[in-house]
Parts: sequence; structure tokens; C-alpha cells
Amino acid sequence: MIVDTLAVVGVGLIGGSFALALKQAGAVREVLGVGRNAARLTVARERGLIDRVAGWAEAGQADCILLAMPVGETGAVLKNLAPHLKPGAIVTDAGSTKSDVIEAARAALGARFGDFVPGHPIAGSEQSGPAAARADLYQGKRVVLTPQAGTRVGAVATVRALWEAAGAQVETLDAAQHDRIFAAVSHLPHLAAFALVDELAQRADGDTCFRFAAGGFRDFTRIAGSSPEMWRDIALANREALLTELDAYLAALQTLRQTVASEDAEALLTIFSRARAARELWMKQQDS
Amino acid sequence: MIVDTLAVVGVGLIGGSFALALKQAGAVREVLGVGRNAARLTVARERGLIDRVAGWAEAGQADCILLAMPVGETGAVLKNLAPHLKPGAIVTDAGSTKSDVIEAARAALGARFGDFVPGHPIAGSEQSGPAAARADLYQGKRVVLTPQAGTRVGAVATVRALWEAAGAQVETLDAAQHDRIFAAVSHLPHLAAFALVDELAQRADGDTCFRFAAGGFRDFTRIAGSSPEMWRDIALANREALLTELDAYLAALQTLRQTVASEDAEALLTIFSRARAARELWMKQQDS
Repeated sequence: MIVDTLAVVGVGLIGGSFALALKQAGAVREVLGVGRNAARLTVARERGLIDRVAGWAEAGQADCILLAMPVGETGAVLKNLAPHLKPGAIVTDAGSTKSDVIEAARAALGARFGDFVPGHPIAGSEQSGPAAARADLYQGKRVVLTPQAGTRVGAVATVRALWEAAGAQVETLDAAQHDRIFAAVSHLPHLAAFALVDELAQRADGDTCFRFAAGGFRDFTRIAGSSPEMWRDIALANREALLTELDAYLAALQTLRQTVASEDAEALLTIFSRARAARELWMKQQDS
Repeated sequence: MIVDTLAVVGVGLIGGSFALALKQAGAVREVLGVGRNAARLTVARERGLIDRVAGWAEAGQADCILLAMPVGETGAVLKNLAPHLKPGAIVTDAGSTKSDVIEAARAALGARFGDFVPGHPIAGSEQSGPAAARADLYQGKRVVLTPQAGTRVGAVATVRALWEAAGAQVETLDAAQHDRIFAAVSHLPHLAAFALVDELAQRADGDTCFRFAAGGFRDFTRIAGSSPEMWRDIALANREALLTELDAYLAALQTLRQTVASEDAEALLTIFSRARAARELWMKQQDS
């Protein structure tokens, strides 16, 4: 047992899978679920993700509280929770952006900010909600923690132990660096996929196009099936880093456009070959 | 038996899988392989994709000749083949672009242009080469034929029967419409994936970024593992339609960038929700 009681705010894929993994690992005795959506909480209880539903006052008495709702709600949730936090309670989160979450936590938690451990599990699915939760979601996956100068060392150790009990490998990163990296490898691809599908769907002949779309399209656009609310929040929360990435990508596409327009066969081959080689190297490193 | 002898020019994933499927279906007696790369031809023979290696003269005596090398070579291949074509021999292709292939065929085949059936199997993989060929590659997949006014009806019927024997569903489309549709649902996504991976790989901190890339990135960029030569040829062959698509995509990304920059939460939610709904509908239609 790592903690006695865990409270999860937002019992969806991420929070529900965390709870399930910890229960199966015997790392927690009781899990409380907090949320606005009664139907989702019912599914979470029926699936055994949580033991019971709780309000802010009760959640604040838990040993550890995981925030797993969309990042845009972090400030409001922490303001509700702060007055009820018992001494020594640890708060952590699973948000895809860190600088904005840290800023919200600092403002809402005041003197208790040292008990907040910013975290981001690099796992997920285009599926969402408690019905999609599974105990092995974090098995072998990375979790990034971005502790601050004032973060209590013991709190970091506990959160690390919980994620490891869930099967994950834990690393730490500077929060701003985290946000830049994930803008590049996750947030930008999501926006690029959403934009491509939406552009096609808006056309008069969109239906005909979709009819001939195949495997390449399916994989390229899989992440366009992700939660719109979650991605709206991420895009806004990590706006600066994301705009930098969008500009870099727009510039790369403009260059590629120019290369096609000028029929520069050699330059096209160079770009495509470099991309393939980089991806193959990455895939090899993933396997090892 | 639909044809006695089949010749395949370019025995890679596409041509090799066609040959293998037809042999297993008993739709062809003998398969000849034509190509410049001796090592690939050896793999093709060892794997039973082809019965033996042939030159242009012998290939021209086959009942049906499938062109399955990169589309940029269509003109040169047909010029080599044309003098040897036996009466009644049917030529077809598996290229991802059709207008340029048709133009090349018209120029190279002259009076025999009526025996050329332009085709495009909507199947593939980021794998390539004869080692990747498999008999079930076309099972349940679409094949688009784009016959011209002068195309012999009997030739179209034979090519259709061959693809159906390989397990595919055959449809016909206007060639220009084909090229527009596939620029949108296939060629653009490939270039977008290549551009994203290459842009990242060129960075000083590219390695760090790749280290945190996960499942969403893997699927989004899977097609960036495709053959650079094949995609160089496609990009050039379908240049006009592709430039139109690139411009539409650049405009959609610019709009999205503006929406993020202006923190328009509602507009972001609208775009993401429309995209998700369109993709879910498409997935449902794929399953049915």
C-alpha cells in the first residue's frame, strides 16, 4: 500500500485507468471519484474504477488527489479543493500541459503549493471516458513529472511510486521544456489531424473523398477522433509553444509546396528519405 | 483461369501481391517478372511471386502485363514494351495517379492504347519490396479503374475479373476525379506526415523530442515510412491536384493558427468537434 485513500477528479480514461491499475497493484485501499457528470461516475463505480463518489470536502481528506479532468479546469478545481486539503495530502495531475497547470496550482494552493506534483502520463487513446479505462494503460509507458523548486521531495517520491506501481517509467523534465516537446510531438500532430479531416468534411464533395480514403488516412487521422474539449483546453493552455510549432510546420509545408511546384525531384527525394530514415530510427529506439 | 500468362513489371509489394493472389486463386498459369533489380527478382522468385524472370520481348507476349513500378517510369517502360506486345495483350497498371499515366500510355502505345486499362488498387503498406508481398493484400480492398473513351471493353472486363479474383472490389472513376480525390485523401496526408517528421528531425533538439513521442505520433507518421522514390513520383505526377490540396490544407492550418492565437475557445471546439464527428461517421461507413 502506497497511499490509503486516492481521490480522482475526472474519472475518465486517464483517471479511471490510474485508479484501476493502483487497485490491482494493491497500492491504494480506497478510491473516491469526483466529477460533475453523474452518468460517468455511475459507470466508474460499476466498473470498479472508484469505490464511491465524493464531494470536494471528502476528496480533500484523501492522501493523494489526482486531477484528471481537462486542463482548463485546473484552477477552478483547485480552488474548490484547497480549503479542504488535509495536512500532508498530496495533489498531482495528469494534464498534457504543465506551465499553465503549475501557474493555476500556485495561485489556487498558496502555501500548499509544495504539495502539488505536476505530472503527465504519456499514454492515452482516441477513446475517452470511464468505459475506456483499463488497468494496463500505463504499462511500460512514460510519465513525466515537472516538480518545481518548492515542491516537497516526499510528495514527488510518493507520486513517482504510484505511477511505477501502475507500470509506468517516471522521468522528470523542466516544465517549459515539457511544454515545448509535447507541442511538437503531440499537440501539433493532433491539430494537424483535426484540420485535415475538418477541411475535407467541409467540402461539397467531401463524402466522395471519404469513400476512397483508406489505411493511410485512417492512421494519419486517428487522433482526430480525440476529445474536442480536451484538445481545446490543451491548445489554449499551451498556446505559445503550439503557435511556435504551427509556424514551423507551416513553413515546412510551404517549403514542400514550393519543391513540388518547381518539380524539384531531387529535393523531394531528400525530404522524404530524411523523414523515413528519422522515423525508422525512432521506431527502432522505441522497440529497444 | 482468367489469363494464361501474366507479366509483372516491378515485382514489389503491389505487383508481387497481385501475382501471389492470382496464383493462389488459380486465375493465372504462369507469372513473369520484369525488373532492373536482380536481388529483388531473386526474392520474388524464391517467394513464388513469379515463376521466372523475363525481358521486354518475352513480357510483351504475356496475355496481361501489370505495371507496378513507380509511376514516373511509366512512359519509359511502355516504350520498351510496345514493340513486343502480342495481338490482344492487355496492359494495365497499379499507379497511384492516373492522368499522367494515361498520357504516358497514349504517347507510348499509339494504336494499342485501347488495350491499356488504367488502374489503382487502394491498398498498400509503408512496407515495400517483394519480401512484403502477401496474397491477401487486396482482400476486401477497393480497386479504381479509369478507362478512357478508347479503352477496349473486353480489356476492362479482364482486368476487373483479375482484381476480383485477387479479392478486391472494382469501381470506375473519371481519371481527373480520381487524381483530385487521391490528392486529398492520400497524397496530401503522405506529404503532411513526411514534412512533420522531417521538420522535427532537422532540429537541434530533435532527439529529445522523438524520445517523448508516443502512440499518436506513431500513427500520424506511419505513412512517413513509405518509399521516398514512390512518393517523389506521385507528388510530381499529380502535381496540380496536390498543389490545390496543399493550398487548401495550408489555409485550414492558418485558420486554426489564427483561432489558437486569438484564444477563440468556441471556434476551436467547433473545428475539433466537426472533425471528430466526420471521422466517426467515416469509420462507421468503413465497417459497414
